[in-house]
Amino acid sequence: MERFPYEKLPESELKELKELGRLCRGDILKMTYIANSGHPGGSMSSIDLYLTVFKYAKLRPVDDPARDRIVISHGHTSPGVYAAMARLGFVDLDEVLAGFRHPASVFEGHVTRGVGIIDWTTGNLGQGLSAGLGFALASRFTGKDYHVFVLMSDAEQAKGQVAEARRVAKKYGVTNLTVIIDYNDAQISGRARDVMPVNIKENYLADGWRVIEIDGHDYEQIYLALKEAVEDELNPVAIIAKTVMGKGVSFMENEVKYHGKPLNREELEKALAELGIENDVDVYIEKRKQLPVEKHKKVYKTYPIKIDTGEPITYTSPTDNRSAFGKAILDLVKKNVNNPETTPIVAVDCDLKGSVKLDLLDKEFPERLLEVGVQEHNAAAMAGALSAEGVITFFADFGVFGISETYNQHRLNAINGTNLKVVVTHCGLNVGEDGKTHHGLDYVSGPMNWYGFKVIVPGDPNQTDRVVRYAAKEYGNFVIAMGRSKLPIILDENGKPFFGEGYTFEYGKIDVVRKGDDAVIITYGSTLCEAVNAADELKKEGVNVAVLNVSCPVDLDIETLKMVDGKPVLVVEDHNVFTGLGSFLGTTLLENGIIPKKYVRVGVPEFAVSGSYTMLYKLYGLDKDGIISRLREML
Amino acid sequence: MERFPYEKLPESELKELKELGRLCRGDILKMTYIANSGHPGGSMSSIDLYLTVFKYAKLRPVDDPARDRIVISHGHTSPGVYAAMARLGFVDLDEVLAGFRHPASVFEGHVTRGVGIIDWTTGNLGQGLSAGLGFALASRFTGKDYHVFVLMSDAEQAKGQVAEARRVAKKYGVTNLTVIIDYNDAQISGRARDVMPVNIKENYLADGWRVIEIDGHDYEQIYLALKEAVEDELNPVAIIAKTVMGKGVSFMENEVKYHGKPLNREELEKALAELGIENDVDVYIEKRKQLPVEKHKKVYKTYPIKIDTGEPITYTSPTDNRSAFGKAILDLVKKNVNNPETTPIVAVDCDLKGSVKLDLLDKEFPERLLEVGVQEHNAAAMAGALSAEGVITFFADFGVFGISETYNQHRLNAINGTNLKVVVTHCGLNVGEDGKTHHGLDYVSGPMNWYGFKVIVPGDPNQTDRVVRYAAKEYGNFVIAMGRSKLPIILDENGKPFFGEGYTFEYGKIDVVRKGDDAVIITYGSTLCEAVNAADELKKEGVNVAVLNVSCPVDLDIETLKMVDGKPVLVVEDHNVFTGLGSFLGTTLLENGIIPKKYVRVGVPEFAVSGSYTMLYKLYGLDKDGIISRLREML
Repeated sequence: MERFPYEKLPESELKELKELGRLCRGDILKMTYIANSGHPGGSMSSIDLYLTVFKYAKLRPVDDPARDRIVISHGHTSPGVYAAMARLGFVDLDEVLAGFRHPASVFEGHVTRGVGIIDWTTGNLGQGLSAGLGFALASRFTGKDYHVFVLMSDAEQAKGQVAEARRVAKKYGVTNLTVIIDYNDAQISGRARDVMPVNIKENYLADGWRVIEIDGHDYEQIYLALKEAVEDELNPVAIIAKTVMGKGVSFMENEVKYHGKPLNREELEKALAELGIENDVDVYIEKRKQLPVEKHKKVYKTYPIKIDTGEPITYTSPTDNRSAFGKAILDLVKKNVNNPETTPIVAVDCDLKGSVKLDLLDKEFPERLLEVGVQEHNAAAMAGALSAEGVITFFADFGVFGISETYNQHRLNAINGTNLKVVVTHCGLNVGEDGKTHHGLDYVSGPMNWYGFKVIVPGDPNQTDRVVRYAAKEYGNFVIAMGRSKLPIILDENGKPFFGEGYTFEYGKIDVVRKGDDAVIITYGSTLCEAVNAADELKKEGVNVAVLNVSCPVDLDIETLKMVDGKPVLVVEDHNVFTGLGSFLGTTLLENGIIPKKYVRVGVPEFAVSGSYTMLYKLYGLDKDGIISRLREML
Repeated sequence: MERFPYEKLPESELKELKELGRLCRGDILKMTYIANSGHPGGSMSSIDLYLTVFKYAKLRPVDDPARDRIVISHGHTSPGVYAAMARLGFVDLDEVLAGFRHPASVFEGHVTRGVGIIDWTTGNLGQGLSAGLGFALASRFTGKDYHVFVLMSDAEQAKGQVAEARRVAKKYGVTNLTVIIDYNDAQISGRARDVMPVNIKENYLADGWRVIEIDGHDYEQIYLALKEAVEDELNPVAIIAKTVMGKGVSFMENEVKYHGKPLNREELEKALAELGIENDVDVYIEKRKQLPVEKHKKVYKTYPIKIDTGEPITYTSPTDNRSAFGKAILDLVKKNVNNPETTPIVAVDCDLKGSVKLDLLDKEFPERLLEVGVQEHNAAAMAGALSAEGVITFFADFGVFGISETYNQHRLNAINGTNLKVVVTHCGLNVGEDGKTHHGLDYVSGPMNWYGFKVIVPGDPNQTDRVVRYAAKEYGNFVIAMGRSKLPIILDENGKPFFGEGYTFEYGKIDVVRKGDDAVIITYGSTLCEAVNAADELKKEGVNVAVLNVSCPVDLDIETLKMVDGKPVLVVEDHNVFTGLGSFLGTTLLENGIIPKKYVRVGVPEFAVSGSYTMLYKLYGLDKDGIISRLREML
């Protein structure tokens, strides 16, 4: 069916919408009462918007890959979303009423991806526009013809990330995206204009958007505004819909206290009576009691990846890992860009393309690089949505921006089960002179808080090349972390590139780069070469030190680790020493009954100063000499 | 001396500025050449702004507590800042030229707090305006009469956080704050207007600021604009200064490649000749070689804290920790607000005052609550600066916002050695029905990446009350984490409140809440009561289980931990199980030769569903029954 097919809403449609609005308001009040939890106020101000979008957007069949996309940025209005979806036949009303906010139900407290027509799990405000923008941009690469509707609250317009997303939409001329703002002028702490005044209209206009203002409870106005927005091929459009919190029940209207609080029994009776709706909540309360205390099993669909990963490049002279990344991604795009059968590959940059080596890609395939400037929050969320929507997405940035600054955006990507490859260059003290604000020292520990994210820290350019090709073909979220400096090629004991011909990257595998029974160095990334040099030097003295490269520090290979039992173990890492591999490896060993003779960790114990990375490695004992002297103390 | 004393710049002053501009340009080129690192391009576009601000603002004596404040948001223009400070006598020119970006020098790659007249360590773009706003607001509480100058780049205007800061400045009528934007239209990846178009002027106007546009290389215009801005008592003012990257050396002008790259020898000779400056870099290269490879010892001054912490409140019936926090901070403000001798206390809220219980403070002392709406990034950075500037600052928010969303802002606060008390309520699965986007599960592991931050997770309302009073009187950064639900009062073995009369909170101390030799439960926060109940129930069966409350999980009390040697240990935490206490405690035990008989950890292994917290605790084995059955398996 065509989107918004009528020039003007027919009387019958209008009548139906009004009736649906009445019923949904009852559903909202009932489900929050039954769950004794949830947000009725905003649900009732947004409900007429939900009904009109869900009814006239191109949303059927739900599993059509080209159906329109729905992002509810203010995910706490889930009662309104569920009610509208149920009354329009996308989900089952009984299940909603009985299950809302129960562990066994997919109708969670905040809307989640894959339930009905919902395309993004939300809850933290101000994130939805970036996600919608990612979806809108993805269609350019996947060739799907859909429109993205992002529904938002007024309070979240204050979030800076919204402005970032607005500007990127404008820069890229995105017109398959419409924002609808529920302007009820009420938020948790009071009237929006008092809590934090935001000139919403002026803000959108200043960033080059078109703005349409309407009454958010007048279905005819809502319908016409949406139709106009969808048909505007010149501008991204924001519809500012003036609404009333608690709309439809006299004593709830404009009462901020109903933002996040269900009615009590007496209020419920009164409200339902006013709406002319029967109070049947006891039926559902009984049904709810029958639900098992179990986690529901809902998972959203992901897409299959088909790409040619090409031939790995083997480097033989010192190269920085970031250049190896830049060449690998260029090679991947080159191999696949003209094959319509393969999954598109795109990179997102935040004004660092020369440093993160995306300039190589930009020169040959500028359309495959999305340049969003110094707007990391939007970039990370947008990249996550792009990656969830059929596009293999690399988000490249310095460690402090790609991990620390965008930490929560990646947590939300992880929640959404995206397919994002976060490539962070400039990690560790290896960054050198830029100093403490630029030393990213949490590239392992940060992502460990984002369930499901895999972390790979390659030990030289050859491993980097293979890791990038590996991550591209595996669905899922990865962090690939690297330093800034050139690194020597890691050689095996015969002088051949260790990660060259014959080596295949296998996620989770620990590489035994040097064998030896006197002690074991466990390391990864920029310090691997220092450890190998230390072991090689000690070998000349007859001290045999093993070197283990743990390039996947988050998923430890216990079998290989058994070799450290009873031996002195030195963990060396260019990472925060309190949170890096050394901090949790000991626990893993203990849990597995592997007890080293000694266990010492060397890393970065404080914010460091500026200086060349060689000086910094020396100051913190991360260089070959530091490692040797630590080992001497231990032996 | 008065700020900006002349109505119009006298000829002699103008002449002096021009000469200083020429000399500083030489210094910039020299120091970046000597260090073979750094950012000459932006330094040369900003230099005339630096000279004019530093010369005419009220900056002497430098140690005057009421001198004007300087924040350089684009901290990579450090060569320009150091040159201007040196030529105006704030720092030593020889030390700058020889030491720039060397570990032994305070002249780090990005400007750092406490060096000359610099009041905030920067480097990550888009943060400076929030810091300046924090300083500007602090003056209201400390009664100091200073003006804050924030110098920024054009590229960083894209950061959403800048918009957040702008709106808060406008809301609070802040007029002792002036922003000066170096609009050189160039950033790393190209011309600013191409990389990411930002309608800078329109953005400031839309947020209610006054804008003055000038030529950023015309000292008369710069001076007059600054004077006007400082004297404007109605609006915050932004000066947009049109400049030229690389200004002053013909072949560098408008060349983006000199953004982050020093000149080579030949270019340097040519540039210095054009500026009429002698090339004496070899002298400084020699001096630099003499510098020891040591970390410099510079620390910035902090302020002494004087407050009356009042009498602790002892609760005897179930209470949520957040209410205990709300009452404690109200009590602290009440005790001190009328005493001009004590350090002012202020709280910052992001539209959650009812939930984080700052509504209690707001009702009695509204002027002590800064309400900034859904703008967490600005809130965290602004709160950090407030706290550094003589105001004990509590930043209260939900765990997902106060830790995850503002992760990098707190890292930067930590770098700045602030005095911030981050109170995060709604941590863990204890949040319940709001679901996965709202379950903050990294309140221990996140802050461990922010060197120097202490983390306290109180076990009941009595401990919460004492912890809040303790943190208020100790200079430094703290996270105080708590759940959402009511908690029973933890009782000792005699049935008296464990954290009541006679208990004094001591940072780092582990509380032995129950004694027992058969096994040890190690826990903290919302699961302490579950552990105590489990131990009490097992005791009836003759199984004696010790319960240790590790309310300071980041700084472990090894002495007390020795008691677990040889015993089965169960770590229970409402936290990400891969990154919480259980993940690193094993390593600490191993390093200290304490080897438990068994070591098992229970926590949250995935993003959880919605549900009441009691259901969620049951599902994840965090409740009394789950703990008992785990212990049974272990014994």
